[in-house]
Amino acid sequence: MSSSRVVGPVRIVGAGLLGTSIGLVLRRQGVEVSLVDASPTAVKLASEYGAGHAATDADSPSLIVVATPPDVVADVVAAEIARFPGAVVTDVASVKGAVLDSLVSRGVDLSNYVGSHPMAGRERGGAVAARADLFTGRAWIVCTRPEVSAEAVSAVTALAEACGSTVVELSTSDHDAAVALVSHVPQIVSSAVASSLVGARDDYVTLAGGGLRDVTRIAASDPTLWIQILTANSDDISTVLRGVRDRLDSVLTALDKGAATAVLADLLAAGNGGVARIPGKHGASAQFAQILVIIDDTPGQLAKLLTEIGELGVNMEDLRLEHSPGSQIGFAEVSVIPSAEDELVAALESRGWRIAGEGR
Amino acid sequence: MSSSRVVGPVRIVGAGLLGTSIGLVLRRQGVEVSLVDASPTAVKLASEYGAGHAATDADSPSLIVVATPPDVVADVVAAEIARFPGAVVTDVASVKGAVLDSLVSRGVDLSNYVGSHPMAGRERGGAVAARADLFTGRAWIVCTRPEVSAEAVSAVTALAEACGSTVVELSTSDHDAAVALVSHVPQIVSSAVASSLVGARDDYVTLAGGGLRDVTRIAASDPTLWIQILTANSDDISTVLRGVRDRLDSVLTALDKGAATAVLADLLAAGNGGVARIPGKHGASAQFAQILVIIDDTPGQLAKLLTEIGELGVNMEDLRLEHSPGSQIGFAEVSVIPSAEDELVAALESRGWRIAGEGR
Repeated sequence: MSSSRVVGPVRIVGAGLLGTSIGLVLRRQGVEVSLVDASPTAVKLASEYGAGHAATDADSPSLIVVATPPDVVADVVAAEIARFPGAVVTDVASVKGAVLDSLVSRGVDLSNYVGSHPMAGRERGGAVAARADLFTGRAWIVCTRPEVSAEAVSAVTALAEACGSTVVELSTSDHDAAVALVSHVPQIVSSAVASSLVGARDDYVTLAGGGLRDVTRIAASDPTLWIQILTANSDDISTVLRGVRDRLDSVLTALDKGAATAVLADLLAAGNGGVARIPGKHGASAQFAQILVIIDDTPGQLAKLLTEIGELGVNMEDLRLEHSPGSQIGFAEVSVIPSAEDELVAALESRGWRIAGEGR
Repeated sequence: MSSSRVVGPVRIVGAGLLGTSIGLVLRRQGVEVSLVDASPTAVKLASEYGAGHAATDADSPSLIVVATPPDVVADVVAAEIARFPGAVVTDVASVKGAVLDSLVSRGVDLSNYVGSHPMAGRERGGAVAARADLFTGRAWIVCTRPEVSAEAVSAVTALAEACGSTVVELSTSDHDAAVALVSHVPQIVSSAVASSLVGARDDYVTLAGGGLRDVTRIAASDPTLWIQILTANSDDISTVLRGVRDRLDSVLTALDKGAATAVLADLLAAGNGGVARIPGKHGASAQFAQILVIIDDTPGQLAKLLTEIGELGVNMEDLRLEHSPGSQIGFAEVSVIPSAEDELVAALESRGWRIAGEGR
């Protein structure tokens, strides 16, 4: 009956956003899914959406997915292992070391436990926000450990792949260090910069351009979720955050001495070097040329621009929109490989498009 | 002959990106423009592009625009005032207090000097990168002072408006405090976060998602330009940067004590509050709902999506693209007013589009 590489039955504990989304995927592939949640309403809702049936005492799962709130994950994993010693167990919490440490300290048999972390979510939570494509195209980190059976790793890998994710294997400690670097510290710093705006004058904030918007975009994230994530990864966050704080300290000291040129030059050059390491489109690190096309602020005109760029045979590497506060003008920032820039500008101008400068 | 509100002749000192772009605008409006530059080649190039003619000894400008590199602006402004005491003089340097202080200390008559700051630019500099639309839709700050003649302020305002910019009047000290807050400190912090990536492991950096990309995007900026800007605005930068550093210090102290929950909650809440103050589209502060549509990574499919959204009569407030490293999948993040979200999702799904979750 099943078209999936996932071997069921699968038991999902926690019928929230992640658990229900996983259930939707597996049910569509014909895998038997049972659902458990502290809230019977959540189970009923997830079940009606088609994410599985309510669990019964007769449950006999081969794979258990713990998708509860992060602060109870270790308790639930331990209870599931005790109840179903033959099943493979994974969890989807976004910090892995704290869960593993807690499980190890209980002396639980962990040979069939493999922690994992699908790097996807939504601002809206709960079964009501669940989607079968929630994980499509995202990384799903599987935290391997030497003592885990190959079958267990294989079962969790199959789950991630069934959900359309790209599996990345990392040790638990590497996972937590990596997410501190690429996710947790950027979140804290973004919030710290956005905090500067709280007491600022309106006429100052009105001058915000694309740079400030980019730096502070994730400062709009949900505090309740992030407090749980950040407090669970204190040590790794401290290490990275201390480096950032120290660099800012060096700048402040140099500014106060009136001799900041060399320190700023070093910082800006290091920033150039760091950002160049972030993989671009399709994993290739590349620098693109940006062309700012002036558009009036209607979806129709943007569709027209993209259609014409397509007609010109130019491959658009990226696209961002920018709005000009106080006017009806918008900008479409089109990224192309540098060698295509001049030709595209000329072709667009000959079709009547106007090319603008960057906001500063 | 002239269709412009700008009264010529206009003398532009510095035939680089900004000076040449201003010349292009004014010449198209029939204003007489003369060009001066330390490099005769730059003048020749700008002149051939149509930005004006080379200045002669017979120059008798009514408006002088100083668009030299920032570190010589004060010298040049003082020399122009001495030579053309009847003309209005402005400059376009992006930090205003240092220029004014330097001019005041020379005892120069400043009744016809009005500093200004067009908030536009390009990564590529020089006359070769100049564009008549460089300033279109951007803010152009005019730094008024009580002792300046109304005619001088009016002349500079007319210049900014002729270039398609929105004029914002601010005092010199307010200007510098504002750009420290919305531009200079975000630049420094972005560079500091990106610097963390320099020595990081490849497999960590590969996990970078949209959040890290946003926070570090401006860390790719040109160091040579930014060193000049940042060193000229030390005091205002120090004030804002110290606030950010202190917030990071509080987090570090709390993390080290293992009691960071309240500190992080405060920081994240303040970040929410700060980012909500940034004006959205058309100057209105608003929160939009984001819909992530899965697209294969071709410009044609994006144009199709936008055309269909237009057909559905939905007003797209913003659009961002995201690429899934390692696969051919892309995501179009479409922002709409929250009340339009559910209907648009249903309509897109019924047309065969797949809706995904956010990268985390």
